[in-house]
Amino acid sequence: MTSAGTATTRLREQGFELPAVPAARTGSYEQFRQVGTIIHVAGQLPTIDGDLPARGLLGADVDIALGQRLARIAAVNCLAVGAAAVGSLDRLRLVQMLVFVASTPDFGDHATVADGATRLLLDVLGEDGAHARTAIGVAGLPRNSPVEIQMICTWSPTP
Amino acid sequence: MTSAGTATTRLREQGFELPAVPAARTGSYEQFRQVGTIIHVAGQLPTIDGDLPARGLLGADVDIALGQRLARIAAVNCLAVGAAAVGSLDRLRLVQMLVFVASTPDFGDHATVADGATRLLLDVLGEDGAHARTAIGVAGLPRNSPVEIQMICTWSPTP
Amino acid sequence: MTSAGTATTRLREQGFELPAVPAARTGSYEQFRQVGTIIHVAGQLPTIDGDLPARGLLGADVDIALGQRLARIAAVNCLAVGAAAVGSLDRLRLVQMLVFVASTPDFGDHATVADGATRLLLDVLGEDGAHARTAIGVAGLPRNSPVEIQMICTWSPTP
Repeated sequence: MTSAGTATTRLREQGFELPAVPAARTGSYEQFRQVGTIIHVAGQLPTIDGDLPARGLLGADVDIALGQRLARIAAVNCLAVGAAAVGSLDRLRLVQMLVFVASTPDFGDHATVADGATRLLLDVLGEDGAHARTAIGVAGLPRNSPVEIQMICTWSPTP
Repeated sequence: MTSAGTATTRLREQGFELPAVPAARTGSYEQFRQVGTIIHVAGQLPTIDGDLPARGLLGADVDIALGQRLARIAAVNCLAVGAAAVGSLDRLRLVQMLVFVASTPDFGDHATVADGATRLLLDVLGEDGAHARTAIGVAGLPRNSPVEIQMICTWSPTP
Repeated sequence: MTSAGTATTRLREQGFELPAVPAARTGSYEQFRQVGTIIHVAGQLPTIDGDLPARGLLGADVDIALGQRLARIAAVNCLAVGAAAVGSLDRLRLVQMLVFVASTPDFGDHATVADGATRLLLDVLGEDGAHARTAIGVAGLPRNSPVEIQMICTWSPTP
């Protein structure tokens, strides 16, 4: 990590080290899969060293500030996978982000939760962090995680 | 709009003018992002000039006919974004549509709601409007919208 | 089917015949749509000859073992569509799988349900069956299906 690039430095300024690629379930699916110049990153939970910092639903158990923090952690895990796929965080360019927010039927602030991830991605990757986005509220998520993020990315033209 | 093409005319026959590209949240995500010949359109709510005509859940607050109308409006917003991406509605070709229907657990008519959007897209774009589709029921959506639509599209080979 | 390839044989060993492509709703969406080398397969329910073997929610009406079986059936329907798109099951290569599990808010074993599909795909397609995966819990699905699967696939480089 001594030759860390600009994006890694900016990530550190946001309070994150690029983690190891989170382990997928053993002998199961892949964390990413490439077709042409497109990389599909598997859905990432906001785990830190494999542990979930919180569980439950937005609108009941988890407030918006915590939801935004979890969205940032899940986004950083996506960055770890994407960086592994393209070789370096500095060569990563985002395309699309799908944000799943486990929430009660009356909750309506999914976009505010997703903004936590979007802002971090723009801060860390600049123009390469710009992405189309969809945010939805789901009934529940694996391990009762409040947030899950799936990304599509590609190589940056300006590494 | 004086040199409107065939698709724009057909859209008008369905009772819609192609709207301006809906505003994304300021300083946040992009309404579309391109990789190769593929355009990912951000999730669109059924807003008209930024306002939602209805809120709530299918199966409780919103009936199927209204759900279909909202699906059509969300699809038209996707068309506006897609047309901006490829330069003209007449050059737009659809690939995939993901329809999110905020609904109660016992609701089962998500496909009927989505049909509202599918029929409009085929009426407006003809063969270029054909699309793979996934329709699901979600716990809730941003701003308590009953419907949200995400699209993948590309350039038409016959502009 | 007399010249069935290796993948078809392996599918048979898992207890499945490759079904006919499930019918989409008449005059409505397509079961797949291609852009470049990428094939988007429409969301598939776990139907057998058009019928759903079970309905309801994981965490209430459907246990995990049944959920896994339904995930396998939905995955086989995706394989049928993908094989039709690329010409043969032996030429199919998976990219991404999105698994929707209709479930109660407290359910957390979506990944275990999805594993049913993942293992079958790896058994049948080998390396070409490897895929990035996202599993989420949704409020409900069309026809009250407990599971729905959407896939992105491409051509295998080793047919």
